[in-house]
Amino acid sequence: MLLSSVLPAAALLVQQAWAQAADPTSSYYATGVPTDTPVPGNYTDYLRPRVHFSPPRYFMNDPNGMHRDPSGTWHIYYQYNPLTPVAGNQHWGHATSKDLYTWENQKIAVWPPNNYTYVFSGSAVIDSNNTSGFFPDQDNGVVAVYTLAEYPGGEAGIQYQAIAYSRDDGYTFEAYDRNPVLNINSTQFRDPYVIWHEPSRHWVMVIAYAAEYVIGVYTSPDLKEWTHASNFTKHGYLGTQYECPNLLQMPMKGGDPVWFLVISLNPGGPRGGSISQYFVGDFNGTHFEPFDDATRFTDFGKDNYAAQFFHNVPANEPQIALGWASNWQYTQLVPTGLLEHGQFRSAMTVPREHYIANVSARGYDLISGIHNVSAIIDEELAFNSSLGNGTILAYFGDVPSGAFYLEANITNLTSTLQGTANFTISSSVSGEYISGGINAAGSPGIWVDRGHIRGFDNPYFTDKFSEEGVLAPNSTTWSLSLLYDNSILEMFLNGAQQAGTVTFFPERRLDTLAIYVGGIPESAGSSVAVWSLKDTWAPQADGNGTVRGNVTDGATGSMKMF
Amino acid sequence: MLLSSVLPAAALLVQQAWAQAADPTSSYYATGVPTDTPVPGNYTDYLRPRVHFSPPRYFMNDPNGMHRDPSGTWHIYYQYNPLTPVAGNQHWGHATSKDLYTWENQKIAVWPPNNYTYVFSGSAVIDSNNTSGFFPDQDNGVVAVYTLAEYPGGEAGIQYQAIAYSRDDGYTFEAYDRNPVLNINSTQFRDPYVIWHEPSRHWVMVIAYAAEYVIGVYTSPDLKEWTHASNFTKHGYLGTQYECPNLLQMPMKGGDPVWFLVISLNPGGPRGGSISQYFVGDFNGTHFEPFDDATRFTDFGKDNYAAQFFHNVPANEPQIALGWASNWQYTQLVPTGLLEHGQFRSAMTVPREHYIANVSARGYDLISGIHNVSAIIDEELAFNSSLGNGTILAYFGDVPSGAFYLEANITNLTSTLQGTANFTISSSVSGEYISGGINAAGSPGIWVDRGHIRGFDNPYFTDKFSEEGVLAPNSTTWSLSLLYDNSILEMFLNGAQQAGTVTFFPERRLDTLAIYVGGIPESAGSSVAVWSLKDTWAPQADGNGTVRGNVTDGATGSMKMF
Repeated sequence: MLLSSVLPAAALLVQQAWAQAADPTSSYYATGVPTDTPVPGNYTDYLRPRVHFSPPRYFMNDPNGMHRDPSGTWHIYYQYNPLTPVAGNQHWGHATSKDLYTWENQKIAVWPPNNYTYVFSGSAVIDSNNTSGFFPDQDNGVVAVYTLAEYPGGEAGIQYQAIAYSRDDGYTFEAYDRNPVLNINSTQFRDPYVIWHEPSRHWVMVIAYAAEYVIGVYTSPDLKEWTHASNFTKHGYLGTQYECPNLLQMPMKGGDPVWFLVISLNPGGPRGGSISQYFVGDFNGTHFEPFDDATRFTDFGKDNYAAQFFHNVPANEPQIALGWASNWQYTQLVPTGLLEHGQFRSAMTVPREHYIANVSARGYDLISGIHNVSAIIDEELAFNSSLGNGTILAYFGDVPSGAFYLEANITNLTSTLQGTANFTISSSVSGEYISGGINAAGSPGIWVDRGHIRGFDNPYFTDKFSEEGVLAPNSTTWSLSLLYDNSILEMFLNGAQQAGTVTFFPERRLDTLAIYVGGIPESAGSSVAVWSLKDTWAPQADGNGTVRGNVTDGATGSMKMF
Repeated sequence: MLLSSVLPAAALLVQQAWAQAADPTSSYYATGVPTDTPVPGNYTDYLRPRVHFSPPRYFMNDPNGMHRDPSGTWHIYYQYNPLTPVAGNQHWGHATSKDLYTWENQKIAVWPPNNYTYVFSGSAVIDSNNTSGFFPDQDNGVVAVYTLAEYPGGEAGIQYQAIAYSRDDGYTFEAYDRNPVLNINSTQFRDPYVIWHEPSRHWVMVIAYAAEYVIGVYTSPDLKEWTHASNFTKHGYLGTQYECPNLLQMPMKGGDPVWFLVISLNPGGPRGGSISQYFVGDFNGTHFEPFDDATRFTDFGKDNYAAQFFHNVPANEPQIALGWASNWQYTQLVPTGLLEHGQFRSAMTVPREHYIANVSARGYDLISGIHNVSAIIDEELAFNSSLGNGTILAYFGDVPSGAFYLEANITNLTSTLQGTANFTISSSVSGEYISGGINAAGSPGIWVDRGHIRGFDNPYFTDKFSEEGVLAPNSTTWSLSLLYDNSILEMFLNGAQQAGTVTFFPERRLDTLAIYVGGIPESAGSSVAVWSLKDTWAPQADGNGTVRGNVTDGATGSMKMF
C-alpha cells in the first residue's frame, strides 16, 4: 500500500514529533493502543459485516502475512491504523480462524519501530528448516517480511524491507536486529511477498518498484540476504503504481499447476481507483514468463484489492485468498467510520478458492468461488426447486445477522443464451435498493447496480458494474450466487467463474429480497434457494456487544522484550 | 462490428425472405431508402448534437472508410441502418466536410449485394498509382475494402472481405466483379483497415479474427490478392471479441514517428461493453511489435468506440480520428431513437488530433485533443481571466445550438498537486445535472458523473468515470476543457492529455453551467472562458427543419450501373 497519495494530512501529523532514534529493534507504542491484548470492537451496527472479517475499530486496508500454521489455524494480518478511521499509523493487526469465517481478534502483531515509520504490507512464511537461524529449537517458526515506510516530519521518505520472527506461532514478533534486509534507498519500493521455491531450494520475494511498474524478483537462502534476480516490467494495465504482488503455484483444471502472478494497481484502475490484475505463466525460481500478453482482472466490481494468498495450501488444491473489500478512491469517506457503536472502515472479502481453467475463449480464467459456504449457513429463508419463470420474495429483516446467501440455478436450457435472473434487495423503510443479476440472452452478462442506495455518494463511487461474454455458448445451465452481508455484496456466475465485489452503504438496513427468473423455456428448470447466515461475531460479544478477542492468550503470551 | 450478439431479432427478420442469388456485383435496395439522394434528416430535437456528426435518421455505428480526398474534402462513411433506429440492414452511409464539423450528408455509398448480406466495417484508400487497375485514367480513384456478413435465414453466417471502387471521389462505388477478395470461411473475420506501406511498396490490411483475439496482417500488391503475413495475438485486454483495428504511423513528441495499433473490443470491456485499446511499437511491413506489454485505453469514458483514423494526413502531423460515441451495452435503447422530429441513434465524437508523448510515467501516452475548435466557436458566454478561487455561472438556455465549449486554466501553482475545478451543468426546469471536474490535490484525477441525468437509465449505463495519476508532479499548471453538445460531453485534461467521452440523455434540455475553482494559492492564477458553439446543421435545414444533404450532386452523380 501507498499512503502518500491517500493519507489526509491530519493522519500524518498524529506522530509528527518523533523523538526516538531509528533503532531497528525498537517499537513505538502509540498512546491508547493496547499492546498485549486485542483492540476491543463492537460488531453490532447495521452496516457491520457479520460473516466477513473487519477490524475491531478504526481503519484496515491490505491483508498481510496470510498463512495457515502447522496446527491448521488460519492467520490474517492486516494493515491497521488503531487510532483513527482513516489510513495512517500503520501496524499489522492480527486475527485467527479455524474456518476462515469465525475470526478471533488477536493483539497487534507487528509494531512500528518508531513514531515516524509505518509498518506497510508484507507476507509471512513458516521457516520449518530454520534457514533463518531464528528457530534452533522448532520447526514452526514464522518470519514476517514487510516494508517499513519512513515519514520523517510527516513527509514520505524511503521504503525498505525488514523482517521479524515469531517463536509462538505468529502471535508475537521480534524484529531482526540487523534490519533492514533490503534497502535500495527508494521512496517507492514495497509489499514483499515471499515463497519457498523448492526446486531452487531458496526463498523468492516478489516486490513492487511501485512507480516504475516493475515487479522485482529477489532470492535468498535465509530470508536475510536478498539477491536481485529479475524484473517483470510494464505488463498489463499500468494505472499509477504497482502494488502488492503475489506469486504462487495454482492448480490448472485439466493440467499441471501453473504459476500465477497477481499485481494490484492504484490509483488509475480502469473503473477508477484500485484494481488487481493477474498473469499466468512459468516461473523457474528467478524469472516469471507469462503464457500470453493479455491483461486479466480478478473481479468485475470495484471493491476487491490487494488480495493475498495464504501460504501452506498445497499447490494442487484451490488456493485461498482474502482481498481488501474497498477502494482507495473513497475508503476513507464511507459512513462506517461514523457508526454509533463501532467506528470502522473496510472489511475483507470472504475467503475465496481459486484455480485456473479455460472456461472462456480468453483462456487462463481465474476461478474464484466462496470457500465452504456451508460453514456459515444458518436457516432456509426461501426455497423453490421448480420455480420456472417467476418471482420469489424473502423478508430477512428479522435475521439477526442481516446476511444471506442465495443460489439460483437454471438447468436444461435448449441454448445457454436463454434466461434472466434479476435480484432486488431493498429497504421496506427507505425504499433504497441494490439490484443485479445475470442476463443470459443476447450478450450474456452479469451485472450489479448500487446506484439506488442512498447512504453514501461520492464522485468516484461508481454505481454499475458488469462482465459480459462469460457463458460458454454450448452450456445448457448457468447459476447465480450471492453472498449479502449488510454493506458488502459478492456475486458469482456459475459458482466461481466470474466474481464481483461491491460495497454499499444504505441509510437503513435492507430487509427485502426479490428474485425474478424469466425467459427460460418450459422444458428448462430453475431453482432458487436463500439461506440466512450466522453472525460470526455475536457469540464473541459480551452484554454490551463488545468483542474482546483473545484476551487470555494475549495476556499470557510472550511479552514483547524489545 | 459484430451484430449477432446485439441485433434484436426483429431487425434480422426485416429481410428474412431473401430471393436473389449471391451475385457479388448486385445490389439490394430496401424499400423506402433513397438510392441517389441522401436520406433526409431533422436535427432540431433537443438531444441532437449540433457540432457532432449524427446520421440523418435511424441507426449509425462504426465510422468507416475515412479519408481526405485530393481536393481536401474529408469523407466519413459509417455503419448505417436506414430503416430502423436499431442495428441491422448495414450499409455505408456517407458524409463530407471541409472543416470536419460541418457535414454534408451524401447518398448511401455502399449497398449490400442482396437482402441477406450486410455491409460491415472497413476502410477506403486512394489508389493513386492505380495498383488495382480500376483507374486507368485517374489518380484519385477510391477503393473501399469492407466486410460482407451473410445472415442467411436471419442467422449469422460467414464474413468475408470485398472491395468496391469509386471513380467519382468516393461518392459512388461499384463492387469488384470478382468479390470476395479474402474469404477464410469464418463467421468472425471482419473490419479490414488498409494502408499503403511505402517502404515495402505494398498494401497492408489489419483485420480482426474477432473471436480468437487475433489481429491478422495481410499484404497485397493490388488490393485484390491478399497474402497472410503475421498475427498479433492475445495482447492487452481481451473482452469478448476484437474488432475494428487501425494501424498507422503517428507522430511521437520529441522523436521519430511510431507505429500505432488500436484495437476495439466488445463486449466485455472493463467498464462494461465497448472500449478501445492501443499499442505503440514498430511495423516492418509485415509484423507489428509493441514496445512494451502494457495495456492502454484511448478514453476514460464509456462512449468512444471503434474510432477510425483518416487516411492521407501526413505521418508527421497529428493524426485525426472520429470515434463512435456510444456503447453496445445500451446504444439501441437510448431515447434519441424516440425523438419527435428525427429519430436517430448515435453520433461520432468531434474530430480529435492524436500523437504519442511521454507525459506520464506510463509512457506512450495517446494525446487526443479537439481539432481546431475555433471553427465552431460562436459567442463568448462567460469570461474571467483572474478568477482565483471562485464560481462562474453561465445560462445557455438561449443558445440556439444548446452547445458550448469551456476552458479553465490554472497557472502559477507552487505545486501541481493543488486546486480543484468542478463543473455542474443542469436544467433549471427539471433539476437534473451532469457534473465533473479535475481534482489536482491528493490523488490527481479527472472525473465525470452522469448519474443525476434522468432521461435514461439501464443496468449498464454506468454513472461515473475517472482517470487518475495524470498530472506530472513537477507541472505548475493544469487545465480542463469541455465540449458540451446536448447529449454528448467530451472532457480533456491539459487540452488533450486525457480524453473522456460520455453520452447522457436529460428529460429536459440543460441550460445552466456553474464552474467552481478552489484550493489554489493566492499566488496562482485561474481563468475560465465559455463560448457558445455554432449549430452546424441549422444552416442546411429548410423551413421544416429538414436537412436534405447533397441532393444536387446525388441526383447528377454517376448512376449505379450494377
